[in-house]
Amino acid sequence: MLREAIYHRPKQNWAYAYDNKTIHLRVRTKRGEADEAFVIAGDKYAWEQTRYVVPMKPLASDELFDYWEAEAVPPLRRLKYGFRFRSGNEELYMSEKGFSSVEPENYLTLFEFPFLNPADVFEPPAWVKDAVFYQIFPERFANGDSSLNPAGTLPWGGAPTPTNFFGGDLQGVIDHLDHLVDLGVNAIYFNPLFEATTNHKYDTKDYMKVDPRFGSNEKLKELVDACHAKGIRVLLDAVFNHSGKEFPPFVDVADKGPDSPFADWFHVREFPLRVENGIPTYDTFGFEPIMPKLNTENAEVKRYLLDVARYWIEEVGIDGWRLDVANEVDHAFWRELRSVVKGLNPEAYILGEIWHDSIAWLQGDQFDAVMNYPVTEAVLDFFARGVIEAVPFANTIGNQLAAYPRQVVEASFNLLGSHDTPRLLTVCGEDERRMKLATLFQLTFPGTPSIYYGDEVGMNGGGDPHCRGCMVWEKDKQNKELFEFFAAAIRLRHNHEALRSASFKFLVANGGLLVYERLSSDNSERLVVAMNVSEQPVEVVLPRATAGQSWTPIFGE
Amino acid sequence: MLREAIYHRPKQNWAYAYDNKTIHLRVRTKRGEADEAFVIAGDKYAWEQTRYVVPMKPLASDELFDYWEAEAVPPLRRLKYGFRFRSGNEELYMSEKGFSSVEPENYLTLFEFPFLNPADVFEPPAWVKDAVFYQIFPERFANGDSSLNPAGTLPWGGAPTPTNFFGGDLQGVIDHLDHLVDLGVNAIYFNPLFEATTNHKYDTKDYMKVDPRFGSNEKLKELVDACHAKGIRVLLDAVFNHSGKEFPPFVDVADKGPDSPFADWFHVREFPLRVENGIPTYDTFGFEPIMPKLNTENAEVKRYLLDVARYWIEEVGIDGWRLDVANEVDHAFWRELRSVVKGLNPEAYILGEIWHDSIAWLQGDQFDAVMNYPVTEAVLDFFARGVIEAVPFANTIGNQLAAYPRQVVEASFNLLGSHDTPRLLTVCGEDERRMKLATLFQLTFPGTPSIYYGDEVGMNGGGDPHCRGCMVWEKDKQNKELFEFFAAAIRLRHNHEALRSASFKFLVANGGLLVYERLSSDNSERLVVAMNVSEQPVEVVLPRATAGQSWTPIFGE
Repeated sequence: MLREAIYHRPKQNWAYAYDNKTIHLRVRTKRGEADEAFVIAGDKYAWEQTRYVVPMKPLASDELFDYWEAEAVPPLRRLKYGFRFRSGNEELYMSEKGFSSVEPENYLTLFEFPFLNPADVFEPPAWVKDAVFYQIFPERFANGDSSLNPAGTLPWGGAPTPTNFFGGDLQGVIDHLDHLVDLGVNAIYFNPLFEATTNHKYDTKDYMKVDPRFGSNEKLKELVDACHAKGIRVLLDAVFNHSGKEFPPFVDVADKGPDSPFADWFHVREFPLRVENGIPTYDTFGFEPIMPKLNTENAEVKRYLLDVARYWIEEVGIDGWRLDVANEVDHAFWRELRSVVKGLNPEAYILGEIWHDSIAWLQGDQFDAVMNYPVTEAVLDFFARGVIEAVPFANTIGNQLAAYPRQVVEASFNLLGSHDTPRLLTVCGEDERRMKLATLFQLTFPGTPSIYYGDEVGMNGGGDPHCRGCMVWEKDKQNKELFEFFAAAIRLRHNHEALRSASFKFLVANGGLLVYERLSSDNSERLVVAMNVSEQPVEVVLPRATAGQSWTPIFGE
Repeated sequence: MLREAIYHRPKQNWAYAYDNKTIHLRVRTKRGEADEAFVIAGDKYAWEQTRYVVPMKPLASDELFDYWEAEAVPPLRRLKYGFRFRSGNEELYMSEKGFSSVEPENYLTLFEFPFLNPADVFEPPAWVKDAVFYQIFPERFANGDSSLNPAGTLPWGGAPTPTNFFGGDLQGVIDHLDHLVDLGVNAIYFNPLFEATTNHKYDTKDYMKVDPRFGSNEKLKELVDACHAKGIRVLLDAVFNHSGKEFPPFVDVADKGPDSPFADWFHVREFPLRVENGIPTYDTFGFEPIMPKLNTENAEVKRYLLDVARYWIEEVGIDGWRLDVANEVDHAFWRELRSVVKGLNPEAYILGEIWHDSIAWLQGDQFDAVMNYPVTEAVLDFFARGVIEAVPFANTIGNQLAAYPRQVVEASFNLLGSHDTPRLLTVCGEDERRMKLATLFQLTFPGTPSIYYGDEVGMNGGGDPHCRGCMVWEKDKQNKELFEFFAAAIRLRHNHEALRSASFKFLVANGGLLVYERLSSDNSERLVVAMNVSEQPVEVVLPRATAGQSWTPIFGE
């Protein structure tokens, strides 16, 4: 067996507590090589009396590796363990000290899960895996109160630019909650709502105040209450990496320089603040002068931002925070944020904006989830762009399923587009069939799906600012059939727990054909999803039905 | 190239901040395969203008892999990066999305070090890498005040048993500080000093009180002051995983059961507390009924233990804590402990007792170091037991050097024996020559070496309790020549920064011969250490001396 391929290192996605009793162990082997894998486990302090061997199950595969998983429920919450592999007639053992062809004599050389402490168990809120999110870019969703229109507001439906305004506001959202109910979503993620100068509001001026062009703090409370009354949870955007240029502490620093009492609230490399050759003399988001990076290591800044996080949960009752540019802020600050937020509401959802592998933030001490862009990209490549076939698609998905603990997979935020990307229909080359398949995949995949406002009625648009168009409300301009498809797929998900569990297994991945199986947590329901992205019809042979049962079609033509 | 062998995942030992400016990047390849490795790096927000390529240096090798390292000092503290490998005529590129034979077109698929936040930089105290520790088991070091002798104290020098007493105390340590100064050590790690029933004191009765058989809190303060006056730092043992059976809260729970206000201070599986078939009905260390596991998730327990940690730093001025059974306590508690301890004294050393791979505790948020038993075992196998040859020894050491960030290697606690293991001389089969080589390796290896009391005068003894004998003070029974060797090797380390830096490179590993090179941090000094554990003389060809310089022997015959 190829020893170089075999990998296990305790913690992360390889050995973790799934709940207060259960430990998951995983290992990887070269793809197609191991016929069987086993865990050899026991209690470190009573090895001889407690040693047992348990077979591992195939969890997923990617291009290079098979991933194996086993679970253990050690009565005294401590586990010593090693691995055994079989490939044909070859046996191989793995301990912390390396490989051997016979079982290591000294069990002390095995790996350890020293003790399962509940404080370290990563438990994202249980509601998340049952949620379907709807993302709203507030300036462009609905104008419900024209008295709030910013100066120069353009007629609804015009072409979006980086700087123009159409008057979307909170009253507009309240007025259209029925649209969300009809669609079947039960959670909203709002792009920033707090006072700022731009239309996207990622340049905060006042973190404690709803932007007056959107409404008031009271109006937001009214909106959140109205959502809750309809069973819809609300997530706000916490832009804590940077403020805006009109944030009073920044104004003061720009004005007084190093003498400002807020001088340490930012990362100033050189006073006075200025931009030289396109590079600000202070740290910013990207090179954007109006977005000065906040010094989240400064005690006053921490207190201020944690107060912000607290205020909107306590005063308005929001159900969580989406953290903007989450990977550029220090881990220490996020740990404090989690402690504050979960202290107020253990069921609050903490969602980080990270586009990359995020294991360092998903260990239970920081976020509940990240925006799952690696899955987004794979889905778009296969379903929307058609640039990869089913095999590499399945490999990427398999890699993602193995990359994180199971609870992370269950709570991950799966989106096919956002205010930062071209719209799904546009990526699909306006092909609604591709869009439907992509959406069906999203809605039958573990994690919480998020629909970007307007996708469900057929809105299109390229990258920012074109993906930020005004929501289409005229009934005759909405794609009714597409809406019905979204609504039906969402209903399907709500009606079948198997589609929300973490169990996911590819049965076929071949050319344009993808067949996968989903099992409910208690194994009582088994669903098979088959999709063909090619123009050619294909025949799918269903796996044998469970004994005494038969297959029933529940979706599709 | 063997893609299955190549590994990189951001954070841990693969991509980390070494200081507030410097990022270290590492990757591994199949041993002997890559001729060169490069990092391709730049700023994510200005890739085209900032992209550059830098060669990686070989860091270490083990049986299966070569490890490569490069450092980056990105002016805006953020880094996007990928890897390029060359093996003969083959080129291979690695991004977060996998491998390709040409450079990935889309730089967004590369890895990220999103932002170097100082709060996340792991900085163990600078003094640690310059320290040489001396471990004292207090009951057996010296009896300086016979008025404190416990009832039944035996004459000094008798055979140690699990339960007997010889009257060692703090005055005894004060009386013999000159011995430590003569030896050249500049730090002491004390086994537990607080009131307890056993001779090892790992069953604490009162965490706020020095055991009266050892002295008083005032006496400990006198001892710490005396040490500091001689430039010796003091580390105490924090037994926070479990208390003793006479700890008042446990007495109360044993007495009152679930009605005790301390019922949640422990992990009781079933009341009343009892032992059935050797298994206590409450969690303990191992199966030891007198060591009930503390519930470090209970707010009162946390407050109490953190007060203990604070008290001895504030009141007595200790320089750090060694954490007993550190891996069985929750990570959340250790994070709080670090915050309290470093808040009082940023230079305090936090050392965890973990015998295994400890990367999960060594990320900057928990410990500064762990007791480096994997290196201990390798050194004993090669030098002391003679059961492995130089090649597997070098592989294990190489593996360890690559397994942790550089600052962890610099501050790791390298011991060749402790109160939990047979004494070095005994493991060496009483062969002083082997013992000297092992010690010389320990003292010329990165990290902080720790000498177990008495090893330096030739004490022997098997596992607990035999390794806990009374210190030999009669001059004629001390091995004077061995002591001189220890003292000379310690002086050598103190006099040459090259021996304390993280730079370590094997030049030869063959049979019983080991040759390695050590470089000072500023490259001004270069040392070569050559050791032969075999009975046969070998000839060593020194590497070419640095231009304009020549080799000078500084140690050995």
